Amino acid sequence: MPIPQPVFDPPFNIVRCSHAVLRVRDLDASRQFYEQTIGLVVEHADRDTLYFRGLEERNHHSLVLKRGPEPVAERLGFQVASEGDLDRAHIYFKERQLPAEFVEVPFQGRTLHAVDSEGNRLELYFQMDQAERILQQYGRYRGCHPQRIDHFNFFTRDVRASMNFYAALGFRLTEYTSSDDSEPRIASAWMHRKGSVHDVAFTSGQGPRLHHFAYWVPSPLNIIHLCDVMATTGFLANMERGPGRHGISNAFFLYVRDPDGHRIELYASDYLTVDPDFAPIRWSISDPRRQTLWGTPAPRSWFEEGSVFPNTPVGPPKFSFAPVAAD
Amino acid sequence: MPIPQPVFDPPFNIVRCSHAVLRVRDLDASRQFYEQTIGLVVEHADRDTLYFRGLEERNHHSLVLKRGPEPVAERLGFQVASEGDLDRAHIYFKERQLPAEFVEVPFQGRTLHAVDSEGNRLELYFQMDQAERILQQYGRYRGCHPQRIDHFNFFTRDVRASMNFYAALGFRLTEYTSSDDSEPRIASAWMHRKGSVHDVAFTSGQGPRLHHFAYWVPSPLNIIHLCDVMATTGFLANMERGPGRHGISNAFFLYVRDPDGHRIELYASDYLTVDPDFAPIRWSISDPRRQTLWGTPAPRSWFEEGSVFPNTPVGPPKFSFAPVAAD
Amino acid sequence: MPIPQPVFDPPFNIVRCSHAVLRVRDLDASRQFYEQTIGLVVEHADRDTLYFRGLEERNHHSLVLKRGPEPVAERLGFQVASEGDLDRAHIYFKERQLPAEFVEVPFQGRTLHAVDSEGNRLELYFQMDQAERILQQYGRYRGCHPQRIDHFNFFTRDVRASMNFYAALGFRLTEYTSSDDSEPRIASAWMHRKGSVHDVAFTSGQGPRLHHFAYWVPSPLNIIHLCDVMATTGFLANMERGPGRHGISNAFFLYVRDPDGHRIELYASDYLTVDPDFAPIRWSISDPRRQTLWGTPAPRSWFEEGSVFPNTPVGPPKFSFAPVAAD
Amino acid sequence: MPIPQPVFDPPFNIVRCSHAVLRVRDLDASRQFYEQTIGLVVEHADRDTLYFRGLEERNHHSLVLKRGPEPVAERLGFQVASEGDLDRAHIYFKERQLPAEFVEVPFQGRTLHAVDSEGNRLELYFQMDQAERILQQYGRYRGCHPQRIDHFNFFTRDVRASMNFYAALGFRLTEYTSSDDSEPRIASAWMHRKGSVHDVAFTSGQGPRLHHFAYWVPSPLNIIHLCDVMATTGFLANMERGPGRHGISNAFFLYVRDPDGHRIELYASDYLTVDPDFAPIRWSISDPRRQTLWGTPAPRSWFEEGSVFPNTPVGPPKFSFAPVAAD
Repeated sequence: MPIPQPVFDPPFNIVRCSHAVLRVRDLDASRQFYEQTIGLVVEHADRDTLYFRGLEERNHHSLVLKRGPEPVAERLGFQVASEGDLDRAHIYFKERQLPAEFVEVPFQGRTLHAVDSEGNRLELYFQMDQAERILQQYGRYRGCHPQRIDHFNFFTRDVRASMNFYAALGFRLTEYTSSDDSEPRIASAWMHRKGSVHDVAFTSGQGPRLHHFAYWVPSPLNIIHLCDVMATTGFLANMERGPGRHGISNAFFLYVRDPDGHRIELYASDYLTVDPDFAPIRWSISDPRRQTLWGTPAPRSWFEEGSVFPNTPVGPPKFSFAPVAAD
Repeated sequence: MPIPQPVFDPPFNIVRCSHAVLRVRDLDASRQFYEQTIGLVVEHADRDTLYFRGLEERNHHSLVLKRGPEPVAERLGFQVASEGDLDRAHIYFKERQLPAEFVEVPFQGRTLHAVDSEGNRLELYFQMDQAERILQQYGRYRGCHPQRIDHFNFFTRDVRASMNFYAALGFRLTEYTSSDDSEPRIASAWMHRKGSVHDVAFTSGQGPRLHHFAYWVPSPLNIIHLCDVMATTGFLANMERGPGRHGISNAFFLYVRDPDGHRIELYASDYLTVDPDFAPIRWSISDPRRQTLWGTPAPRSWFEEGSVFPNTPVGPPKFSFAPVAAD
Repeated sequence: MPIPQPVFDPPFNIVRCSHAVLRVRDLDASRQFYEQTIGLVVEHADRDTLYFRGLEERNHHSLVLKRGPEPVAERLGFQVASEGDLDRAHIYFKERQLPAEFVEVPFQGRTLHAVDSEGNRLELYFQMDQAERILQQYGRYRGCHPQRIDHFNFFTRDVRASMNFYAALGFRLTEYTSSDDSEPRIASAWMHRKGSVHDVAFTSGQGPRLHHFAYWVPSPLNIIHLCDVMATTGFLANMERGPGRHGISNAFFLYVRDPDGHRIELYASDYLTVDPDFAPIRWSISDPRRQTLWGTPAPRSWFEEGSVFPNTPVGPPKFSFAPVAAD
Repeated sequence: MPIPQPVFDPPFNIVRCSHAVLRVRDLDASRQFYEQTIGLVVEHADRDTLYFRGLEERNHHSLVLKRGPEPVAERLGFQVASEGDLDRAHIYFKERQLPAEFVEVPFQGRTLHAVDSEGNRLELYFQMDQAERILQQYGRYRGCHPQRIDHFNFFTRDVRASMNFYAALGFRLTEYTSSDDSEPRIASAWMHRKGSVHDVAFTSGQGPRLHHFAYWVPSPLNIIHLCDVMATTGFLANMERGPGRHGISNAFFLYVRDPDGHRIELYASDYLTVDPDFAPIRWSISDPRRQTLWGTPAPRSWFEEGSVFPNTPVGPPKFSFAPVAAD
């Protein structure tokens, strides 16, 4: 089964995944969750919007919450390497009849709203306001000490199509799962631009939807402390899966749901993937350790629930891969 | 519902839980598990027996494995404060028509074999050979860095009877679970002599059987590393429950099964319980957080399986408390 | 050189070290330090006094700060096992012509103020108000997550005299340092009641003075985080020594000074010492690893500075042991 | 004071620092140190050479030790992005009259030996043999669990010249120190290719010499365990500095010396630096926190000692910056 070859000279240069823009119903509840419990820093707050960042991030925001009637995923943001890359991106999407238009977005420079081949809503920019360095203001550390946004994970109807779309943009495949039949189908894929295991991942499922976004934290102990905090401050029901060790990516993980049901992964560990000859790792979909090295299955909600995009109908996946759920 | 009052002047002075004596079918497999994987130190090995201790223990052994046709729990050992305490114990058991006789045991001084009111087989001694101090020989640290034996947990047919028997011996109740009816029944009890949460615990169930014995480890990270090691060295199926945080005892735990099915808990955290006015903590059996603060239920095997004692018939519990199992 | 034999039947029963009563010049500055930085919980505050406790402590206070013109150590508190023990203690001190009188102390039952043979001011009680259990209110965890008071360390003019005084009260010697000459002199001693390495320690020096009091914390990572916090919140100059690993006690330590110069140790790790046949560990005063297993010497201030007691003249030590200081 | 602007289109594409080639006098002693104590994996050993790699590395080696009469640093290796980059590098060095020649090196493809402007001996390659993936063979984890090589640090006579040379090759400046005078001089510089704080760093001093090479480890606890292991297995004198937290890079660090005196840093934490608009961080050389956030000075040896290159004379630095040493 062919997997995409690395494209070292993409049509425009995406640097990394950058920020999630979500709609939530109650900004106060969300702030309590993300600031007091998770430990993100509020960089700006107004009547209808909250801007958060992680402790090492100099960008103004890596999470934007907007007050809205429905808890949807509005946009997923990526930084590009220059203003010229924005223009090249604009042309690239237009040539493929994909929506793409420049818009004004607070705290960001020129911003391109676009939609990928499978319907995920994106937002590309080169410049964002820079915020004060707080990595070494340890007195401000809270919760699980989230340092930076790490990746987005999407439910997609056609993993191969998503994989090919992002591979053409220079995203490199690091790990993937496939079926064991004579013509193996890819069930999920992890792809990066920034040298980590992923900036984006795709899972076969009802799509397009956002499965989760993730923050990198320094150590498993920070995640264990978050478990203790959530379990004893009214957020027990928001703990969906973990803590545990993924086979894929080798990350120590915890999945939690915010007050509106958006899913966040707290993610410790990773490995470096910049080598030009890095060979993607295949996992069989019949190997349960790909999901959890230690063997505990995920709950059914983890396989089925996700955040839809506004005005974006959802359809069934091209192939069905029966998950091994806990129930 | 009355709980037992502390007995500060017991008939004889048990200092702490001390060692487990188990029978296993394959000493080589057991050694691979306990020495190479868990990280206990082999203090003595002969053709039919293995003696292990934890990294801070000066006593010759806290775990004895004997080759045998069936994987049973032979004895649970306790240290007493003096030779005189052994004699007083002998009289105490005899007066209650409970089996008690002095025997010779390698590496131990005068040893009293006895059986408690519910049928658990015990072994009391004052003197044991002392071994070299290796707490600061960090080059010998392996596995999860187990430091010392912490406690025994028993399935008992009658938790109140067990609790009263040990309370009379000076064991102090720290935490317990009980039903919510007008005449609450006790479902489980944690009792200590050494100033920690427990030396012994009793759970209502098919008894008498040993549910597990536990080693104290320095930090949750040691337990997480053990998970990674077990999952990738052929012991994935031996990981039964966890890691997680108990509501009761506040311990960070992992339950694993040895190659013969004996259950071991690796246990980090605890709290000091020496205060004479320490008030036992009650948990309702309908509060799931008593078992796991973070809410994940234990598998059914954890509620049902245990190590029987040789020549000791097992009977049903006096009261039934339906567990909340994962399946 | 004879070391004291354990006294298993002391004249009265001290359970453990319990609390420090210190005078400070600025309660607001102290509260900022102990509550916001170290992470102790304020249980009661009034115009002239602050009462703190650790996260697992049910006792109303383990640290009392009183507004005063001079930063002195007013009293070190110990809990006894019963009201009768208080009366026996009263007689014991009186018979030895040592000051001892019953006083009223807020939040405590009947309290005996006494002075030990070397001039250290003590406070014994049986009953203290019990506070809400917050061990599992993880949302309240701050700083280095201090769980409980662990021990007091005293500068004493005559270590052997101090050791003998406390040995007679049932304190058991766990570790000590002595000179290598033909008639070895003891330079320092660690003694416990509660089953840990120590409740009290004595160091030869200008005395009587309090060298430090210590809180137990769950793991070295909590101490490292405290270093980061102190270094970046204006408390860099208050970090006196560490972090490091003591040879003696095997503790992972950090010594900090509060705004008035009182010294606090944050202390992770320890080992169990309840065995009746526990053999004290000797360290040569010429072995630098006794102080720091990794070899970094302590600064001179650590050897020379301490908190005096009110109205208690200080004198030189009987023997001089030249410390290996960093300068 | 001008600092170099990022070069996004370098003359050839270096991917990352890759491996150190050192000469040592006793391969057995070195193997004991690097394999048994530090925890690197021996991938190949013959009579005269040892090849090591970290736990996540797929490359055949990140450390090569050759038996030799003098403990010198033979070469520092970098991976380039393609064979074409090797050819472009060859031309680039030649055009600048810098030594550059293709050589045969075991386990590597075509390899270019070159020397940078200040005399540091380099080795560039595109292809290296790939080794088995052992990141998830946790049973093989030893020592401090070193995962991957992180960076090289050089003593250089002229920091600005070194910085400019590497900036022209696309290395991006992340942090630097400079004097406070009206015409500030740069005292040290940290530069990266791979998206971390650095692949190379330059410190003003007797040069050219290798100051140290570094491995990334998962958490501070791994480093603390290494301290305990080294201090108790005969390597106490090899612990030179730390553990501590650098102000620069925010890394938790330990510096140790191998049996031949080569210096290794164990390095936990870091932050992502891929943003095209990342602004370098300046530290004043009069701010002691740049070296150690917690304030402990480094020993004099750390400022003065390093590994020379073979046949490469060493000269004094252009500017002198008096270090704040511990003695």
